[in-house]
Amino acid sequence: MKYVRFRDPAGSIRRGRLEDDRVRFGNQTYALDGEEIDVLAPTDPSKIVCIGRNYADHADEMGNDVPDRPLLFLKPPNAVAGHGDTITAPAGKDRIDYEAELGVVIGEQCRHVPVSDAMDVVEGFTCVNDISNRDDQEKEQNWIRGKAFDGAAPLGPVLATPDEVPDGASVQSRVNGELKQDGSTDQLIFPISELIAEITSYLTLEAGDVIATGTPEGVGPLEDGDTVEIEIEGIGTLENTVRRP
Amino acid sequence: MKYVRFRDPAGSIRRGRLEDDRVRFGNQTYALDGEEIDVLAPTDPSKIVCIGRNYADHADEMGNDVPDRPLLFLKPPNAVAGHGDTITAPAGKDRIDYEAELGVVIGEQCRHVPVSDAMDVVEGFTCVNDISNRDDQEKEQNWIRGKAFDGAAPLGPVLATPDEVPDGASVQSRVNGELKQDGSTDQLIFPISELIAEITSYLTLEAGDVIATGTPEGVGPLEDGDTVEIEIEGIGTLENTVRRP
Repeated sequence: MKYVRFRDPAGSIRRGRLEDDRVRFGNQTYALDGEEIDVLAPTDPSKIVCIGRNYADHADEMGNDVPDRPLLFLKPPNAVAGHGDTITAPAGKDRIDYEAELGVVIGEQCRHVPVSDAMDVVEGFTCVNDISNRDDQEKEQNWIRGKAFDGAAPLGPVLATPDEVPDGASVQSRVNGELKQDGSTDQLIFPISELIAEITSYLTLEAGDVIATGTPEGVGPLEDGDTVEIEIEGIGTLENTVRRP
Repeated sequence: MKYVRFRDPAGSIRRGRLEDDRVRFGNQTYALDGEEIDVLAPTDPSKIVCIGRNYADHADEMGNDVPDRPLLFLKPPNAVAGHGDTITAPAGKDRIDYEAELGVVIGEQCRHVPVSDAMDVVEGFTCVNDISNRDDQEKEQNWIRGKAFDGAAPLGPVLATPDEVPDGASVQSRVNGELKQDGSTDQLIFPISELIAEITSYLTLEAGDVIATGTPEGVGPLEDGDTVEIEIEGIGTLENTVRRP
């Protein structure tokens, strides 16, 4: 099943099902990319826990070693954006990058989850664009200006239940239609179950929280007016336009 | 005015006023530290934006230089605890520290706030204990295991409106009654108005969000069973007990 969270023509927030490329709620259906509805992020997380350097080829392209345990950072709720939203990057920066990532949506409040039970707390998956302001990221201890600014975490277009997403799903990004990243979730250094176990040994995860699992090689810059797509096999394509003031 | 957020004997969450050492809501009054009510954190923030090394003497005791712009990090909602709560630290760590800090509670959603208008978005102040797991903090790029674990941000006991808190308010901590930190808000390297302007140039702050403004010198360890108090002039005393599994 694929779920779409959206604002309907009356302004109500709904979670409908995507069926035959139409969003269904009650006795109404709508086009996913039509004018009638405003597609929202598929979840309203209290936090997004992100993983850095979780693909060896990306760690290498950034000149970093592979970490010996998951590198964690946070994106707060102000960073969330939805499919189709225009992202306004922080002003006056040289380099704003896209990063395609598989997002894990948590289905229940949980803490101290063992690896063996970790997939039981997963409601489904979504696409994440971990938009990164490199100018500041390189200069700060904690990546707040670099990674937590408004709009730095587009999520969507749908929440796909686990049965929809194959093992080794492809993770791709395109800028203005040109393929930039082409990885696979079987390249994750720390798999999803280990990430959930590690995070919940310190933090409670809430229903709706998201784990962004890291990005494969091929990250690069976004310029004013660029359209960036994140496509993950079994989920769909998250598309955003970027404004660079 | 001083406001207390609490769960009343019927289980309802209320925000009452502290008057003559009693919490008043409607036609009822309660003792602040009595058995009848459960005092909650005075706000329910979507995020806590924390400032590192914002007192020169603390930066020095930690062997760090004073930063040339505010060092930012985040505590997510799972970190929040209230006055009187028992904080369970991450297990098996050598060093868990208290840090006394003035917390600024934001009163309205805001972005791109100029320094000259910054105090207009402040609803009031509270005490923050920025509890820190040094073992992990020293080893990670972003301070997540170190600073964002469950219970790492006790807040309270009240939200005091700005008129209650003098310029140069004293910021103290005590462990088992012994004075450990004794600073003053006039030692802040980056004052509150500059912090609000800098943070909101990247992130939207929501009503109820908190800025933890940094800690003065004198931080130190908490052992199993310790009682830690954070007292700020004009606000009151936030007290918590610590469990070290």
